[in-house]
Amino acid sequence: MSEKITVAEARRPEAVGRVVVLQGWVRTRRDSKASFSFIEINDGSCFGNIQAIADGELENYESQIKRLSPGCSVTIEGLVRESPGKGQATEVQATRVTVHGTADVETYPLQKKRHSFEFLRSIAHLRPRTNTFGAVARVRNCVCNSIHQFFQEDGFLYVHTPVITASDCEGAGEMFQVTTLNLEDAPKQGGKVDFAADFFDRPSFLTVSGQLEAEIFACGLGKAYTFGPTFRAENSNTARHLAEFWMIEPEMAFCDLVGNMDLAERMLKRVFTDVLEKCPEDIEFFNLRIDKTVVETLRHIIESEFRRLTYTEAVEILKTSGEKFEFPVDWGTDLQSEHERYLTEKHFKCPVILHDYPSSIKPFYMRLSDDEKTVGAMDVLVPKVGEIIGGSQREERLDVLEARMKEQDLEPEDYWWYLDLRRYGTVPHSGFGLGLERLVQFITGMANIRDVIPFPRTPGNAEF
Amino acid sequence: MSEKITVAEARRPEAVGRVVVLQGWVRTRRDSKASFSFIEINDGSCFGNIQAIADGELENYESQIKRLSPGCSVTIEGLVRESPGKGQATEVQATRVTVHGTADVETYPLQKKRHSFEFLRSIAHLRPRTNTFGAVARVRNCVCNSIHQFFQEDGFLYVHTPVITASDCEGAGEMFQVTTLNLEDAPKQGGKVDFAADFFDRPSFLTVSGQLEAEIFACGLGKAYTFGPTFRAENSNTARHLAEFWMIEPEMAFCDLVGNMDLAERMLKRVFTDVLEKCPEDIEFFNLRIDKTVVETLRHIIESEFRRLTYTEAVEILKTSGEKFEFPVDWGTDLQSEHERYLTEKHFKCPVILHDYPSSIKPFYMRLSDDEKTVGAMDVLVPKVGEIIGGSQREERLDVLEARMKEQDLEPEDYWWYLDLRRYGTVPHSGFGLGLERLVQFITGMANIRDVIPFPRTPGNAEF
Repeated sequence: MSEKITVAEARRPEAVGRVVVLQGWVRTRRDSKASFSFIEINDGSCFGNIQAIADGELENYESQIKRLSPGCSVTIEGLVRESPGKGQATEVQATRVTVHGTADVETYPLQKKRHSFEFLRSIAHLRPRTNTFGAVARVRNCVCNSIHQFFQEDGFLYVHTPVITASDCEGAGEMFQVTTLNLEDAPKQGGKVDFAADFFDRPSFLTVSGQLEAEIFACGLGKAYTFGPTFRAENSNTARHLAEFWMIEPEMAFCDLVGNMDLAERMLKRVFTDVLEKCPEDIEFFNLRIDKTVVETLRHIIESEFRRLTYTEAVEILKTSGEKFEFPVDWGTDLQSEHERYLTEKHFKCPVILHDYPSSIKPFYMRLSDDEKTVGAMDVLVPKVGEIIGGSQREERLDVLEARMKEQDLEPEDYWWYLDLRRYGTVPHSGFGLGLERLVQFITGMANIRDVIPFPRTPGNAEF
Repeated sequence: MSEKITVAEARRPEAVGRVVVLQGWVRTRRDSKASFSFIEINDGSCFGNIQAIADGELENYESQIKRLSPGCSVTIEGLVRESPGKGQATEVQATRVTVHGTADVETYPLQKKRHSFEFLRSIAHLRPRTNTFGAVARVRNCVCNSIHQFFQEDGFLYVHTPVITASDCEGAGEMFQVTTLNLEDAPKQGGKVDFAADFFDRPSFLTVSGQLEAEIFACGLGKAYTFGPTFRAENSNTARHLAEFWMIEPEMAFCDLVGNMDLAERMLKRVFTDVLEKCPEDIEFFNLRIDKTVVETLRHIIESEFRRLTYTEAVEILKTSGEKFEFPVDWGTDLQSEHERYLTEKHFKCPVILHDYPSSIKPFYMRLSDDEKTVGAMDVLVPKVGEIIGGSQREERLDVLEARMKEQDLEPEDYWWYLDLRRYGTVPHSGFGLGLERLVQFITGMANIRDVIPFPRTPGNAEF
């Protein structure tokens, strides 16, 4: 009896001697003069292909096998044996090749030649079949699974915070509106659109962050994390911005800023360790073809102790660095990517966590420090990317929080439920946000964020 | 050195003798005449509380401890010892009690009396602090983790399909529109709203399903699953409908309908097994307080072989059942919940998988059978709920698919990329969809779907 196994399994030396069924897509076909063909197939289970040898005596050799081209789908039955070739432990001597679907060489775009990532974005439905995007899919999957497992093992509850929300909770950016009104003829009341007629009886939007709702769960059940889509309606056509992206936001009760930094450091090291261990072939490919520093950088970070210093200390270092920056540095201004990268890449040569930022440049919910000038914020900086994680200890004191809201022209009544968390059994608590795509970009070295999410949404792009 | 541990850890007999720090929220306080108090605290790590004994000699006994009320947040240091009480293995002799936040007895709504679930929905920010909603949160978390692990161990890739989409891909229901146009004054072109001025240059919507995009990944990388939010803008105010809910949609290349049914059955059994094993206290609570059949039903399903039969056979059984149904049964009509429940609850008394439905009542993408009257659809039916999973083998033949689209008045050009999957290396493939909230409802016995999602979105409700 032949048994269906994956290409990943068939490529291991232990598979030698097994009679198996393999199913996948043809990557290449080469014909030998001695009347047999080499067919490389891939099934997505790993980066590498397996080579099948199809003998000229197979009944469909002339009619089908010799016409196989990249993209054709096949079932191959045969015996796994040791490969005499280099770079592969095994190969399959085919006893039967069944062709399920062909792929016209004239029109199928994924022939052997290389395509630009930009072109591949226009065929996002086919790009998972390429080496690069298959590898991105596996690494992204591994990262997601690693993050879930990290939090689950640590006792965090996975919480689904709402995607549609009526509260613009931190003014974190422009929002998409969600509506069932007929835009051609929206009902009006006193000359204005009558949102009482909309689905939710009021204007509603796509969330920019699940943090405030995650705080609800932390302030009652201890530790929670979100892992879901978030949105920004910013008209940014850059390699770093998406209108729709995935965020992970852990939140911990009874946790201060130091505990928060510890968690962020531990989480990143865990993810990088898992990816190196579970996707070695994919990472090797990125290291070879996309960014030659990828493996070294990940290894270095796993072994480093993250350097922690205050924003104030960082500003001092930057001002006395002698480095020419495009943007000036001064206490009280936000650091730019160039400053962050200088600190992590040149000055410390390791990941850096900056903490205690000026309150004036940070949102209302961050905890005011005793100096009343800074808040308990922290940013984790890594090479090439700069900030990869941003977090804070949250303001747990009702009166201070209300005062900070008013300072920032926010209406405390709009946040009644958020304030209730401080009114009833308030606790010190902390959390952070991590953008999944930035993390996958960092790990793979992929230059454009549109190439690490299956179907990127950007201004003008919502196809597929 | 005292070490911080969770209430779950402190409740285990192995904790006896340890000097620990516990942090959580007060559930109750009782004072003994002999000048000491019992304080029950919960930290979300498990259903049960731990009892702390605070002696009258503690320095803040009169000023703070004797004023503790439900909802107050505390840190308790002390020695874990065997409890003489029934129903608990351990208790904590407190050596220090630190109060972080109080909760005014007059205004804090969660006093000892019971509240209706309806009222608790209006304070969704506080309900996670109740027994019921803490248990729902833990079970929901366990279900999510179990699903992810099931697919990860089986070699599926977790794929994030888009939330915002310009294609209404199966006409599966009314959709929410997503826009950045100013609704008060939308730009017009020739008397119509000019969507070229909208963010995505065209009308765009919130997804109703990730299936078609999941097929892209299966048809190139073998096995994929989605786990993300989906939306329906239906004006349904029922206990079974949400405008925003989470779906899991696996998709497998080289898989027929039988393989699809096998996967669905295996997955449900795995999830139920994990929940019984990992959340025994929570499930016990649901069984005691919410629905006395919950444990028995889950156990029975784990041990049952799911009964598989065709739609045609099911119609025959229903017609000859002698049962009075509200809706008549006839070949070619959709089965109602009452029919599905009759089959699984009364006739077979086990989970049922119906397959091979009339093509006329199913979407275009389901594979047409050789009889040309039915399609390779399957629904998994369970007691109390009826359909919990719906899936199909997908039509992989380009010509048949195009013909089916035209039959259903769909424009093949709108689905160019979906058709490309059949044009290039097409393969037999199958998948299904599972609504997370229906599953959590089924497991917990919670009657209203609004009570198994943290922040339900329904007509008129987008608070929090």
